[in-house]
Order: sequence, then structure tokens, then C-alpha cells
Amino acid sequence: MPSTTVTAYAAPASGEPLARTTIERREVGAHDVLIAIEYAGICHSDIHTVNGDWGPQPFPVVPGHEIVGTVSEVGAEVTTHRVGDRVGVGCMVNSCGRCVNCRNGDEQYCVDGTVLTYASTDRDGSTTQGGYSTHVVVDAGFVLSVPEGLDPAAVAPLLCAGITTYSPLKRWGAGPGKQVAVVGLGGLGHLGVKIAHAMGAEVTVLSQSLKKQEDGLRLGADHYFATSDPDTFEQLAGRFDLIVNTVSAGLDIGPYLQLLAVDGALVNVGAPPEPYSVPAMLLVSGRRTFAGSMIGGIAETQEMLDFCAEHGIASEIEVIRAEQVNEAYERVLASDVRYRFVIDAATID
Amino acid sequence: MPSTTVTAYAAPASGEPLARTTIERREVGAHDVLIAIEYAGICHSDIHTVNGDWGPQPFPVVPGHEIVGTVSEVGAEVTTHRVGDRVGVGCMVNSCGRCVNCRNGDEQYCVDGTVLTYASTDRDGSTTQGGYSTHVVVDAGFVLSVPEGLDPAAVAPLLCAGITTYSPLKRWGAGPGKQVAVVGLGGLGHLGVKIAHAMGAEVTVLSQSLKKQEDGLRLGADHYFATSDPDTFEQLAGRFDLIVNTVSAGLDIGPYLQLLAVDGALVNVGAPPEPYSVPAMLLVSGRRTFAGSMIGGIAETQEMLDFCAEHGIASEIEVIRAEQVNEAYERVLASDVRYRFVIDAATID
Repeated sequence: MPSTTVTAYAAPASGEPLARTTIERREVGAHDVLIAIEYAGICHSDIHTVNGDWGPQPFPVVPGHEIVGTVSEVGAEVTTHRVGDRVGVGCMVNSCGRCVNCRNGDEQYCVDGTVLTYASTDRDGSTTQGGYSTHVVVDAGFVLSVPEGLDPAAVAPLLCAGITTYSPLKRWGAGPGKQVAVVGLGGLGHLGVKIAHAMGAEVTVLSQSLKKQEDGLRLGADHYFATSDPDTFEQLAGRFDLIVNTVSAGLDIGPYLQLLAVDGALVNVGAPPEPYSVPAMLLVSGRRTFAGSMIGGIAETQEMLDFCAEHGIASEIEVIRAEQVNEAYERVLASDVRYRFVIDAATID
Repeated sequence: MPSTTVTAYAAPASGEPLARTTIERREVGAHDVLIAIEYAGICHSDIHTVNGDWGPQPFPVVPGHEIVGTVSEVGAEVTTHRVGDRVGVGCMVNSCGRCVNCRNGDEQYCVDGTVLTYASTDRDGSTTQGGYSTHVVVDAGFVLSVPEGLDPAAVAPLLCAGITTYSPLKRWGAGPGKQVAVVGLGGLGHLGVKIAHAMGAEVTVLSQSLKKQEDGLRLGADHYFATSDPDTFEQLAGRFDLIVNTVSAGLDIGPYLQLLAVDGALVNVGAPPEPYSVPAMLLVSGRRTFAGSMIGGIAETQEMLDFCAEHGIASEIEVIRAEQVNEAYERVLASDVRYRFVIDAATID
């Protein structure tokens, strides 16, 4: 199979620092789009993956699934994107297209296995490589149109963190008259707050401390509570129609379930390795729901981008040079980022 | 407060056999209905309560919250029921009527505390006593109309077991084209199967063994699987839109969550004392829901009775004499009942 050599930052092995290298991208097929990458966001998942927290990986791994760039070539059959268009790629780059979930627009739940943007086996048997790179070739069906009017660097995190919070907020009815809580004010949470606010909900942040309270209110939260204060759980009991839990570490989930009103839903967008301990009585006694949600489908991701453009929503970011990536990883692990690092891909080459 | 002495079967103390006794019923107030009880179903909750499994109780306790009878007197303000009407009373007999949940028709989630049919403190401070009795006085707002055409003895269990399964089946969309599983084929489960079938869903019973398979298929199930067979969980992975878990004992819930399709919901109608261990990844990876549900509101209970009359649904029962109640309790504990004992109240006096 013919291919093109491009520059990228890769983890050569589990836990090793990322380093500049070259990788092969496939030739642009009839249905493919070649994207000249401008920006790539750093997601906590990137770090989990290269650190081996999620099991063995096909090293070298080029992380990055929050990609914004411009189209520099399209395959013969591509009608949805044109050279020069600004586009985005999120967490997935392929799926079977035929199973019930793909047909429903839920490519992220493809029965045959969604092809993730990196460290995943593509349908041609090759291993996918992500966005910490100068170029990427992606099937046009998984390429999003980036609407005008938003800072393209700040759009990148929308492709993962944005859709991950938008999807449950939309599905579980965040909107006017609804009480919505966002647990955790990090990369995901800060976008959750902005989006829930734009949807018209009354938004509460539940954060470990009040350290980021000023930020939270500025981003659109109406209320801000510290979960380290037991009074919080007493004061807010039965309050929320929807709680989106963005904290990827384990939590004692019972007290959070008690914050739900009748018919309220607590939706997890992360999955800590240890199971949650869920007292059934808390569900039964208020017809409450404990649910999960994972990114969103392609059509829904486009909808999210359009919604964000309409409401002027993008991520709060710190743009870094590619050679700062390992330092950025350290800072993400230390929760020292407000709220997302984005690699300027012009510094990769 | 004036009152009337009536005959009843009561547990004198925790764990002691029920015995014939007399209790006081309040005088019929302006909004009350006096019901001459014909039948009272035996629910597993009755046994839990009198055995002290759910904490201390205000003994003597007259259990029974699946009550069918005829109206023998109505208060001056009662317009909804007339003397001679056949009526029913379920698990609750009062609520505040003003909180958000009561206003929404969810009296079972009354913020001020729903008044249960027995062993509960009524809004006048008295202790409620249930249906193992000749008569009961109930606020007209909590008295259901029993439609014609059904065996009144077999209607009694609908007031608890029927609404407990109807409500989640309705709310979570059981109907044509839906794959619904009912876990456990007991008092609740056998009604869940009948109701889900009548709603038009394709119904699967998940039971520990195949012992009741013939019954399950006769009651309306399309499929019947043994949960003791590990192949069941492999074969049915990702199959169901809705699973109603009627088993009140603890379960390893993970394997059941894996039986859900994308957007599927597993709804518990019981609440074992030990929390469930819920791997978040099973929720996240299929946008699945783990929820709970408790009986149903009064309007919904009436809707359920009307639905059951329309579809000819009632409980499979074994009618007993009041003096057999302790023996019936033993048999319920031994799962030796198909599928509900109902006390003939004519044998109480």
C-alpha cells in the first residue's frame, strides 16, 4: 500500500516520553480527506493510553483525537469537503457503517468495533495514529466541518471534551427550567458548564474545593459548591434533574444520587476502573437513573459544533509548542491546566 | 376521635405468627371511603415488614396493601366513589397533595412522606393498618375504581405487583418492536410478563432455572432463559431495550447490564440491602441506564387497572382462608406459590 511519510510526536513505549518521529499515512483513497493539521488538543485519555493505564498498546503511539486543520486533498468520491475547508476530527475515524448503531448515527457504539483515532486497528488492518502530527488521512464520513467564527485552536477540544458533555446534556434534557449539575471543572467540565448554560439550564458546579469558583461562575455556572463540604450534600438533596459526572476517578456515588430529584439522571462520561457501589434504594425511591455516555455520533458532533458556533462556545486553552508536550502531560496529571492544552501543529515539523 | 372496631389479622410482634384480633378504624370523614374488604393479596413486603427485616415496626401490624372490596359508605364530600362500587387500595393511602411530586401525580414520592397502607404514620398521627381485615377507611383520593370483567380476587395483586411492573414498562417504552426482559418469574415477574406482552413487546423471561418455563410461555413470554447457565449471558448480549429486575435479592448486576442494547435500561423494582457493584464502563460503552422504580402514582395505577381490564390481565392466584396466612408466608419464603396468595376476607370475621 503506497503511503506518505509525515512528522509526528509519538510515545515509543509505555510510559516513555513522547518524541519527534516520522510515521506513514496512507495514500488518499477515493473516500478520504487529507488534512493539514493546525491544532491538536491534549486529552487525559492520551496520557492514560501512552502510560499503559488501559492495557498494552501498539507502540509507537501518536496520540491526539481533538484535531483541527484544513483540507489539502480529497479523494475522487468525496463531495462533503473541499480543499481549503477547515475541518475537525474527533475520537473515531471509521466504523462498519452497516450495524444497527451505525445506521442510527451512533458510530461510537459500532457493533463491529469503532475505529478510534489512534492505537486502534483500522478496517484495512493498519494501526491508526492520532493528531500530534502534521497531517492525517481520514475517511470523509468521519471528518467534521468547523464552522466559522470560532478560534480554531479552541475548537479542537470540542471534538472530544465538547461532544462528550454536549451529548448527555442534550439527551437528558438540559434546558430552560432544568437544574443541571456538572461534577468536576476540568477539560470536560468547563465545556459542560458552558454548553449547559447555553442550553438554558440553571447550572451548578460540584467541585472538590472552591478554588475555581470564580472561573466557574465566569464560564456560565449559576452556583458553585465544594463536594469536600458535607453541607453541600445536605443542602442540595433532591435538587437536580441531571448531573453530568466528568470526574474519571472513582467517587462514592450514593451521595450524588441523593442530589437527584424524582426522575433525575446522573450520567457518567468517565469510567474509573473500580465499579461504583450503588444502593438500589436510592434509585428506586426516586425513580432515579444512573447512566453512562461516550462521546457522540458524527451527526451529533457536527450538531454540537454548530451549536457552539451559534453560542460562541469554545474551550479555554493554553496553546503549546510540540516539544512542550511531555511537560504538558505532567501538568495535566497535576491538574495544572485551565482548561485544555492544545498543540500548535506548526511547531511539529 | 370516634372509631369503629373491626376484625383483622395482625402480627403482634416482630417475627411472631399473625393472629386474629380487632383493631380500630377511624370514622368515615368527609373525604373518606369505607370499604368492605373482599380480598387482600399477600406481598413479600408484608413478610419483610412483620419479620423486622426493614427495621422496627409499630406492632401490632396488620399487613396487606393489595386490597379489593366494595364501598359501604362515603363521606359527604366524596364524589368519585359510590356505595356498592368495587374499589381497590394499593400501597399508599395518603400524601401531602401539595409538593411537586404529588402535583405531578407521583404521590409515591411525596416530599413530605407518602403514607403507606400499613405500619405508617398517617397525617393525623395515627398508625395505618392494612388489608388483612374486614374493613378499611381510606381517603377517596387513594381509592381506585376496579373495572368490571376481571375476577376481583385476582385483581388484588395488581394494586402492588401490577403497578410496580406496569409503571417501568410504560415509562421505559415497552411496546411493539421492543425487546423486553423480565428477571424473576414470581408475583411481580409473572404480571410483568403479562403486561409487557399486552403492550406488544417481545418478552424474555430470565429465571434462575427452567422450572417455570412452561408457565412463562403460557403467560405471554416469547423466550425463556436460565440465568444459572452462563451461555445465556453470551447468547443474549446486547439484546434488550429494557430489563425489569423483579428479584429482590442481590444480583451480580454487571452481566445483566451487558444484556442491554445501546440506550437500553435495566430498571430495578426491588432494593436489596447490599449495594450493587456497577462497572461504569458497562454504562458508558453502551449509553446504558441503571434505574429504579417504585409502584406508581394514583392516576397511573388507575390507568394500569383499566389497561389490565382491556387486555384481560389479572394475577395468577391461590385464594386462601385467613387462618392459612402463616402457612402461606412460609410458602412464599420457600418460593412455593404460583403466583400470589390472596386472602378471602370473608374468612376473617
